[in-house]
Amino acid sequence: MARPVRRPGSPAEAKLPVAVDAMGGDKAPAEIVAGAVAAARDLGIPVVLVGRAGELGDTGGLGVIEASEVIAMDEDPAPSVRRKKDSSLVRGAEAVRDGRASALVSAGNTGATMASALLRMGRLPGVTRPAIATPIPRPGSHPTVLVDAGANAECTPAMLVQFAQMGAAYSTARYGPAEPTVGLLSIGEESSKGTPLVREAHVALKQAATASGLRFVGNVEGRDLLPGAADVVVTDGFTGNVALKALEGALRFFMGALGQVLDRDEGTRAAAQALLPHLAPLAAEFDPDNTGGAMLLGVDGVCVISHGSSSARAVVAAVRVAHELCGAGLVGRLAEAVEAAPGR
Amino acid sequence: MARPVRRPGSPAEAKLPVAVDAMGGDKAPAEIVAGAVAAARDLGIPVVLVGRAGELGDTGGLGVIEASEVIAMDEDPAPSVRRKKDSSLVRGAEAVRDGRASALVSAGNTGATMASALLRMGRLPGVTRPAIATPIPRPGSHPTVLVDAGANAECTPAMLVQFAQMGAAYSTARYGPAEPTVGLLSIGEESSKGTPLVREAHVALKQAATASGLRFVGNVEGRDLLPGAADVVVTDGFTGNVALKALEGALRFFMGALGQVLDRDEGTRAAAQALLPHLAPLAAEFDPDNTGGAMLLGVDGVCVISHGSSSARAVVAAVRVAHELCGAGLVGRLAEAVEAAPGR
Repeated sequence: MARPVRRPGSPAEAKLPVAVDAMGGDKAPAEIVAGAVAAARDLGIPVVLVGRAGELGDTGGLGVIEASEVIAMDEDPAPSVRRKKDSSLVRGAEAVRDGRASALVSAGNTGATMASALLRMGRLPGVTRPAIATPIPRPGSHPTVLVDAGANAECTPAMLVQFAQMGAAYSTARYGPAEPTVGLLSIGEESSKGTPLVREAHVALKQAATASGLRFVGNVEGRDLLPGAADVVVTDGFTGNVALKALEGALRFFMGALGQVLDRDEGTRAAAQALLPHLAPLAAEFDPDNTGGAMLLGVDGVCVISHGSSSARAVVAAVRVAHELCGAGLVGRLAEAVEAAPGR
Repeated sequence: MARPVRRPGSPAEAKLPVAVDAMGGDKAPAEIVAGAVAAARDLGIPVVLVGRAGELGDTGGLGVIEASEVIAMDEDPAPSVRRKKDSSLVRGAEAVRDGRASALVSAGNTGATMASALLRMGRLPGVTRPAIATPIPRPGSHPTVLVDAGANAECTPAMLVQFAQMGAAYSTARYGPAEPTVGLLSIGEESSKGTPLVREAHVALKQAATASGLRFVGNVEGRDLLPGAADVVVTDGFTGNVALKALEGALRFFMGALGQVLDRDEGTRAAAQALLPHLAPLAAEFDPDNTGGAMLLGVDGVCVISHGSSSARAVVAAVRVAHELCGAGLVGRLAEAVEAAPGR
């Protein structure tokens, strides 16, 4: 009889500490450590730091997994992960693999985080390629999950079907909808629109909808991303990354332009005072420090990728999300979603 | 000795009327005709309408090229253009081909407009595939030209080089920069980033920069589109269309959200009064009715594609742009840019 397989990041392991890569991110280690300390203190979530103990400053009594090396933000991911075996990212991923941590959180080099998680935690059974799931805020509702936001520049139709299955399981675990809607990013509603990849993925997603109950709502367009036409939007990592960054650029531009208008003169500054209570909640919904970060779907463990300029607040949010999703059994749900898929 | 080739849309033909597809667009024919009449009356640009004379209402004395058929907004482009030989789009493109009009302007079915122009005007010598050039507003400067914004879902590296050459010639003719900068849309600055298409196009654009003086500035990302990192950004029509629509969606979302905040109560409405003089110019820069529309580059004639919900004001802008670019010899410049290219 087969021994029950231990599942990293399972509810049973939610009592383990969340491993926070203390060396990753533009504001590391100070802001990262501050966030880890705050998460442990204010939310009561067990946290362990990973990095050079001597450089972390006041760790508020948190445990430290020593790692002597650091993978820089701009290092080539795969070679650096292979070479720097004692880096905070590699040691953090190993802690999840070995049952010493419930999840990995990093604001460091995204590619290296993916590579560390993939090489040390391993892929979930049946998963062709892990993908990045990024939340796109949808005011008044839960965010849209965009998969893949940049892990795989080249994809097959079968990979997009797995992204849909994992994205739907993630949307349910994270945001609650029992049967999340899934859209396919294209350049028109008709199934004949788009590249060969998109046209074939459309057919494959329709089949998956019939076979496994995936709630595929058809093609969505770039203009549907921000208002949020579906709970999950699947696309290849090249298109997803371009679209996501286009939205980020637009957001930053409009916030900046509005800020300039509001700060123009006495009159506009007075007007700003009247508007602030109403603008602040909107700005908060789009603040990347509030989203909890992106999730790497398809590896055998919980791995949260926080944005590079993460503040302590962003780290608190990421630790909370990592802990909650471990408790919600995310990794097991992803494995089930992929294993239950037709053709397997 | 070869007879000098007549070039449709050349400066010599700028005295010809601009052909306006009176039947194309969500608000056709009323708003389209009103715009055509206003352009002729207020700007002194000769205009001819194309469509069903009996349905056009008051044409203010403008001439009409009779066309009994209409290609609907949602009709399949290629078959409808082949079948409806007496449609306003086909007749308008023929008028340019035959030297009875200087340019074609349509707010109708984009795919059918492209197909009509391609089939009736023909491709410019050496052009593999025509592409759509869409302006992305860049407050404080001239717009960034995005090529291809949706004509070709599948592209080759050589096509992207042609898009760069035509896009640069268009940027110069339309907005003035003598040596426009050209960026390649990708998911990172490094030449190793992106799909095989993007990596090969990067190499080909570098070669074109050395050989023909194209001012290639390397890869740009989605977040660079709105602030405007380059005068021209080239990409395949799938990625370009997704990115453009993502920006449009974000724009509409933020304008809507800001509008709701400003209209919340007495206090915010008073604040709105103080801000309006400063917000209005910003809104005007992003108003699609002001841009003059997208340009189909690579056909043997000037063809302006105005957006589907064009008002009379949008038609005035499109007619003005079409007339000016005819006078500026756009088509000849595009032909030169492609003919001068290395490898030809």
